[in-house]
Amino acid sequence: MSDVYSEKSYGADDVGFGEKLGILVVDFQKSFTDPRFTMGGSDRIDRSVEKTAILLKIAREKNIPVASCFVAYPNVDSMPYWKVGVIKETLFEGSEAVELDPRIADPDYDFVFQKVGASAFFMTPCSAFFTKHRVDTIAVTGCVTSGCVRASAVDSFQFGFRTMLVDDCSGDHDERPHQDTLRDVGRRYADVVQSEDVIQYIMSNQ
Amino acid sequence: MSDVYSEKSYGADDVGFGEKLGILVVDFQKSFTDPRFTMGGSDRIDRSVEKTAILLKIAREKNIPVASCFVAYPNVDSMPYWKVGVIKETLFEGSEAVELDPRIADPDYDFVFQKVGASAFFMTPCSAFFTKHRVDTIAVTGCVTSGCVRASAVDSFQFGFRTMLVDDCSGDHDERPHQDTLRDVGRRYADVVQSEDVIQYIMSNQ
Amino acid sequence: MSDVYSEKSYGADDVGFGEKLGILVVDFQKSFTDPRFTMGGSDRIDRSVEKTAILLKIAREKNIPVASCFVAYPNVDSMPYWKVGVIKETLFEGSEAVELDPRIADPDYDFVFQKVGASAFFMTPCSAFFTKHRVDTIAVTGCVTSGCVRASAVDSFQFGFRTMLVDDCSGDHDERPHQDTLRDVGRRYADVVQSEDVIQYIMSNQ
Amino acid sequence: MSDVYSEKSYGADDVGFGEKLGILVVDFQKSFTDPRFTMGGSDRIDRSVEKTAILLKIAREKNIPVASCFVAYPNVDSMPYWKVGVIKETLFEGSEAVELDPRIADPDYDFVFQKVGASAFFMTPCSAFFTKHRVDTIAVTGCVTSGCVRASAVDSFQFGFRTMLVDDCSGDHDERPHQDTLRDVGRRYADVVQSEDVIQYIMSNQ
Repeated sequence: MSDVYSEKSYGADDVGFGEKLGILVVDFQKSFTDPRFTMGGSDRIDRSVEKTAILLKIAREKNIPVASCFVAYPNVDSMPYWKVGVIKETLFEGSEAVELDPRIADPDYDFVFQKVGASAFFMTPCSAFFTKHRVDTIAVTGCVTSGCVRASAVDSFQFGFRTMLVDDCSGDHDERPHQDTLRDVGRRYADVVQSEDVIQYIMSNQ
Repeated sequence: MSDVYSEKSYGADDVGFGEKLGILVVDFQKSFTDPRFTMGGSDRIDRSVEKTAILLKIAREKNIPVASCFVAYPNVDSMPYWKVGVIKETLFEGSEAVELDPRIADPDYDFVFQKVGASAFFMTPCSAFFTKHRVDTIAVTGCVTSGCVRASAVDSFQFGFRTMLVDDCSGDHDERPHQDTLRDVGRRYADVVQSEDVIQYIMSNQ
Repeated sequence: MSDVYSEKSYGADDVGFGEKLGILVVDFQKSFTDPRFTMGGSDRIDRSVEKTAILLKIAREKNIPVASCFVAYPNVDSMPYWKVGVIKETLFEGSEAVELDPRIADPDYDFVFQKVGASAFFMTPCSAFFTKHRVDTIAVTGCVTSGCVRASAVDSFQFGFRTMLVDDCSGDHDERPHQDTLRDVGRRYADVVQSEDVIQYIMSNQ
Repeated sequence: MSDVYSEKSYGADDVGFGEKLGILVVDFQKSFTDPRFTMGGSDRIDRSVEKTAILLKIAREKNIPVASCFVAYPNVDSMPYWKVGVIKETLFEGSEAVELDPRIADPDYDFVFQKVGASAFFMTPCSAFFTKHRVDTIAVTGCVTSGCVRASAVDSFQFGFRTMLVDDCSGDHDERPHQDTLRDVGRRYADVVQSEDVIQYIMSNQ
């Protein structure tokens, strides 16, 4: 694909998998994955939950570190200036909206943590967890692709990790912002891969 | 505009200006603003430099805090895993590619700092500078809109600031990723404004 | 006091209170404040809880932002490399050891948050909370002075806040490490004050 | 040693070296190591520079990642609220006071970076550098032990690294604050080791 970005050497180099994989699951909580909630009900997100559940099952069998986060607040006063109205009405600690989707949750295995920004790394113990486990490659999954997943992938890159954005394990409300994210992130910060690529890497290497 | 995002309450609330403004200038360095460099030569970026220069002139007269950053590295070994080939060949400390564009640079007034990630806030003293000056609202300008400007706007939001993404003071290599960024960021994290809105706020309030 | 540090200009300047105060309460959780727990039972910590309770009562009446944290983990695997044995046996999410002491807790008023390191600011939303509320001065209270209180005071300074280390609202297991902390921090990063100084500031200014 | 801290299980467990070592050198810049500067002239710091030079020579031969920082600011306005008077008069970018001591500097090998707080990790690319190189153990050296070295050791622990505080490679203006630091840090966050321990580890393992 020849465009102004590739002419300027964007996307010239792949990142590639390193020596030790970790998986990050961003915000697969009921507010986004359960149609009973305003932000729920997206088929694209639902499919990405199913795909991620398959990936995680294999990853856990192979002892791959998994970190899984949800966004929640004690009250509106402690939130940043969200423009999404329903966040300010529903994402409270202890509410059902912030519970992880049971299809991907395994609190006995995963490192489950709360976040308050868009990125799973922003002011959370996420990078310290992966550093402690000597992970050098993070596969990013979750929702919403054009929001918290993107911010998390950028931070994974910034923290010095090899970053894999897993296309079919990430979901958005609509297709175009999902694809735009793959385009922007994939030529700068991360390789865009499918879950079967990650599974193949796990089966071959870990 | 009715779409699946607005149905889910994205963009429901504006952020609004607060009590004290600061301006962030992201990566208006020669590698992006001077056509002699591979990543330079974008008319969109050139126009955004000119618009930002006008905004900064007024801001400095009104004693508005300004922070201006550039990205540079001592060597390839200390870089994160960039996929942009030319970054790994040119963005070295002390090289001309990392010098700020003289049209926007005023090192005697601005707080000038180096960054190493995409976001101007990532592992830099940016938030501490604005906190020390009691800024509560940050107008984000610079380049590239779909890369470092976007990452900086997300972090400005995450750090608790009211965030204004200044459309005509931000530039990209192509129009569509610029507009996609306004769309994604504008319904979640920041108000999208024009430089004249910021100037009007300054003239009325500071 | 003439010593090698003052000869080298340490402690030459006071910080002083600014325009808006916030209060940080570090780790006044039962593991440290209740004698039933291994790390509990210190008279010094008990007295600092009582003093902090008085300060907080006044602060809340005057609408001063209060952030109160506790340290807790889902499991040992997600902890940093603590050398304190009992931390690895007791500080688990949901356990009584991580409950805030009822004498200082007011979850309806305070911003209560979990931390995982020593500092209340390390990878937590603490700085964003104070930034959002335009706080420029943080009074640091809590326990243990020579551990998490000290680390929090250093970070408060680093994030650009005016920092007040409140002597009688901070407690340690023994007197000397408490005093050593006041000495080291007080000549570099923060003013060492008494709770009555903070109360007087509140009564006069807010 | 039986005291109230050991009764409460402080210092119960050692951290131990892990699989890959990195070395952090904190603020061995002329302002602290050269007697011509107000904060310089400490024999203790001078000896620690010499010891660190020996350690670094061996480390570089064995390809151990080394990160070396200095503190500097563009101007007073961008500093946090330092209480050390001379910092506000001398630690400016480009001045001799912020040059690394030639005995420990090797900019062609080391990752050299600027910092603005006390900790070498605070808002710097330090953790990302070590993460990228899959370091799991950081040996902390530099000055001043009771200030920036301590803050750096705490952050190394917080970021999930195994932390070794190297006694004879760390210097302070006076002996007691140095020892107090070893005491406080050594029972909580890091193993206190000598340079010969680190050298022995390097010779045996890397």
